[in-house]
Amino acid sequence: MARTVDLNADMGESYGSWTKGNDAALLDIVTSANIACGFHAGDWDVMADTMAKAAENGVGIGAHPGFPDLHGFGRQRMSFAPASLQNLIRYQIGAAQAMARAAGTEVRHLKLHGALANMTSEDEEMARHCYEAAQSVAPDMVIMVLAGTAQQRAAEQLGCQIACEIFADRAYNSDATLVDRKLPGAVIHDAQIAAPRIADMVEAGAIIAEDGTQIPTKIDTICLHGDTPGAVDIARAVQAELEKRGISIQRF
Amino acid sequence: MARTVDLNADMGESYGSWTKGNDAALLDIVTSANIACGFHAGDWDVMADTMAKAAENGVGIGAHPGFPDLHGFGRQRMSFAPASLQNLIRYQIGAAQAMARAAGTEVRHLKLHGALANMTSEDEEMARHCYEAAQSVAPDMVIMVLAGTAQQRAAEQLGCQIACEIFADRAYNSDATLVDRKLPGAVIHDAQIAAPRIADMVEAGAIIAEDGTQIPTKIDTICLHGDTPGAVDIARAVQAELEKRGISIQRF
Amino acid sequence: MARTVDLNADMGESYGSWTKGNDAALLDIVTSANIACGFHAGDWDVMADTMAKAAENGVGIGAHPGFPDLHGFGRQRMSFAPASLQNLIRYQIGAAQAMARAAGTEVRHLKLHGALANMTSEDEEMARHCYEAAQSVAPDMVIMVLAGTAQQRAAEQLGCQIACEIFADRAYNSDATLVDRKLPGAVIHDAQIAAPRIADMVEAGAIIAEDGTQIPTKIDTICLHGDTPGAVDIARAVQAELEKRGISIQRF
Amino acid sequence: MARTVDLNADMGESYGSWTKGNDAALLDIVTSANIACGFHAGDWDVMADTMAKAAENGVGIGAHPGFPDLHGFGRQRMSFAPASLQNLIRYQIGAAQAMARAAGTEVRHLKLHGALANMTSEDEEMARHCYEAAQSVAPDMVIMVLAGTAQQRAAEQLGCQIACEIFADRAYNSDATLVDRKLPGAVIHDAQIAAPRIADMVEAGAIIAEDGTQIPTKIDTICLHGDTPGAVDIARAVQAELEKRGISIQRF
Repeated sequence: MARTVDLNADMGESYGSWTKGNDAALLDIVTSANIACGFHAGDWDVMADTMAKAAENGVGIGAHPGFPDLHGFGRQRMSFAPASLQNLIRYQIGAAQAMARAAGTEVRHLKLHGALANMTSEDEEMARHCYEAAQSVAPDMVIMVLAGTAQQRAAEQLGCQIACEIFADRAYNSDATLVDRKLPGAVIHDAQIAAPRIADMVEAGAIIAEDGTQIPTKIDTICLHGDTPGAVDIARAVQAELEKRGISIQRF
Repeated sequence: MARTVDLNADMGESYGSWTKGNDAALLDIVTSANIACGFHAGDWDVMADTMAKAAENGVGIGAHPGFPDLHGFGRQRMSFAPASLQNLIRYQIGAAQAMARAAGTEVRHLKLHGALANMTSEDEEMARHCYEAAQSVAPDMVIMVLAGTAQQRAAEQLGCQIACEIFADRAYNSDATLVDRKLPGAVIHDAQIAAPRIADMVEAGAIIAEDGTQIPTKIDTICLHGDTPGAVDIARAVQAELEKRGISIQRF
Repeated sequence: MARTVDLNADMGESYGSWTKGNDAALLDIVTSANIACGFHAGDWDVMADTMAKAAENGVGIGAHPGFPDLHGFGRQRMSFAPASLQNLIRYQIGAAQAMARAAGTEVRHLKLHGALANMTSEDEEMARHCYEAAQSVAPDMVIMVLAGTAQQRAAEQLGCQIACEIFADRAYNSDATLVDRKLPGAVIHDAQIAAPRIADMVEAGAIIAEDGTQIPTKIDTICLHGDTPGAVDIARAVQAELEKRGISIQRF
Repeated sequence: MARTVDLNADMGESYGSWTKGNDAALLDIVTSANIACGFHAGDWDVMADTMAKAAENGVGIGAHPGFPDLHGFGRQRMSFAPASLQNLIRYQIGAAQAMARAAGTEVRHLKLHGALANMTSEDEEMARHCYEAAQSVAPDMVIMVLAGTAQQRAAEQLGCQIACEIFADRAYNSDATLVDRKLPGAVIHDAQIAAPRIADMVEAGAIIAEDGTQIPTKIDTICLHGDTPGAVDIARAVQAELEKRGISIQRF
């Protein structure tokens, strides 16, 4: 039964003159920030600013690479030869490392974004290619994986340090996969439902599916969102509920 | 009187399905390669391939950042606030460092590209911002500067390790600036003229202007080009002439 | 003394998953919309949606081309050979025309964006190149020009149909140029000041400078902004004040 | 039995400072040019130059839109909602039309590029969306389709003017699909094999598969390539063979 958990959120998703998300509000809640690396979102200035603010708040910094798909926010499934995929990952991690170093901090973890995350949660070999690439650049980087997916299996096989992640606002099927977004109830919008549900999972050390099935899993971190006001409400409710139950929120 | 000199050239300027330059020929001649970092040219795969080949050939690897101007090949003069300019430089150096690390090698030097090079050779403060950014990411990186320009002054003031560069195929004015490209004789196309001229400069430890004026300068490296067959001929002729005169060609 | 005036605003400045501006609010106020063409902002879907909504609201559609500078929102001053500049303009107008045609409407006017607008308001030859390009593609297009600038002179010399524009929220110098944004009072944030001021100008048929100087000019359209809540307030106040004074708001 | 045929090739695939293909050689051979529209290749200047040269040579101009994938040259399979796909197509056609108009010529046909071509040759609904988009912008445009594929069926169903295309250098299976590029013999490199083979098909009014099977089809145009010296040799050999057999080469 985990008595400590990390809270993470994607950040630094603005680009040029366009802003996105509510990083300021989330930085008061999360303990880890997944920072876009300029391919699907973010740019050199957004990265620098977001990292500086994360560091000020004591929030751990992660590289959050995605496909080179700015228009589609990295949600287009793209096909790259394994070596190219690895170069893509290395490039983005390296850029993030330099920005972090200049800000007097460091990149602690890796989390894959968008279609790259979806594809690697289904395809263990592809996940392995990505994580090998990360290790070739930063051997000690913690790999944040979607609990119970091919990502976790690939990272374990490689012997990476792992942080297993569950979602605060997504319903699960009984095989630990996410309920399809098109189905009713797939996304949880009510903070009063989301918060106790996620606290129950942390206490149970298991994903609790829609039908009540418990799938035991390591739970190191909870993924929050900040794109909508409601999402920040959920984030705050999750934080409050965990604290109420005596579960300590801290960086993995 | 220098008896040792480095030969450098810009490389890795292909992009996606487009190829540019004659990297294979140049890698047999140069001792340092300035590798584009994906903003004005190059991409993750081109960087990885070029670095791997440079390492195989014992050629020193440099990061060659430019403005975010892929269409214009980094030749558009762009205006960024100092902090943004520094973030731009850091991002590209970091990406290059990661690619190099994964290839089992490292980034040894920095050379600025295109309009970024032109502007910093005229503007000492701008040059200083760029080199400070490099130092914030890689304190020991050698800074390759255009000899006698604001680049050199900025790098010296910062106490950087410096490699001073002269051009194999460009005529100089008596104040050490380059003859305007629009004037006759500004670019030297004849290998039989370029080679002894550059060897004379190395032996004299001075830039020799069109009118014969000698401007004493440190000469650590000679910039070669590879974009045209003629340019590779010049590169080979320079190499041969230096060897004939007993000037050793080696990495700074 | 004009008793009729058009109200225009820049629109369609979202991109991919990023939104910008408050197009919905502005479409209830303006009679002409300047729609970004995908180079500095906007994309194929944003253009289509914005045009469809403009057409529904009876708002006239303009092409609003800018430099190929998505990251900088077209605010980087860029240098192109005249023929390239013309190709840039033609490309964007053509794209806008096709989107409009498919939406059952048409592109009625041209307004240049950002640095392209600033540079052409200072450089008559550059403005002429742009407007010639527009005429080569759409001979009957109305050219929206910054009143009293090189834009106006170039468009008049070419014999274009012209709509002269003044700004609702910017102070003018006594030579009809805009007060530098860095000076106090350059940008008017108070709707109760902006609205009567602009109505006075329309009634006077003159730009009224900060020092009270009146510079007589044709005033066909007033540029409103929508990027901030305050800007929409100014837009509404200008609309109300014009109506109160019996000045009819309609498309040029 | 067709006694007249068109020869087409993809052109204008350079970008910025990068060149690709051998447009000059092909313009002496082909009667129709498929000109990239700036999304997967080409830019405003390349389009203008290529169209001007095509017009000078009496070569018919086609818009050749692709996915927004410059790095991957439009070869990444991408997923867009039907309305977005249609906007993508319209945008590119409109840009091409404006460039053509300014060059005193016009866009006569449409040919889809790369992954967009592959996906629409398999998916009739997707092809229909693309061709409807073309019709909404240019009702009289000829649609160039891959003979015998979903492209042809979609265009016929819409009542478009059609030009059916076969490949000069690709082997066919007995069901009219192309032999997989990974199989031996899939791509024909020998001009002395390619030329009589394609002339036989034109005379037979049928695709002739590897195993000799004849699949009757309308053949309006033959697709040539120009990316390699060998490809231009094939193009010249096809031209010579058709002429030898009295088959007239002219624009559809």
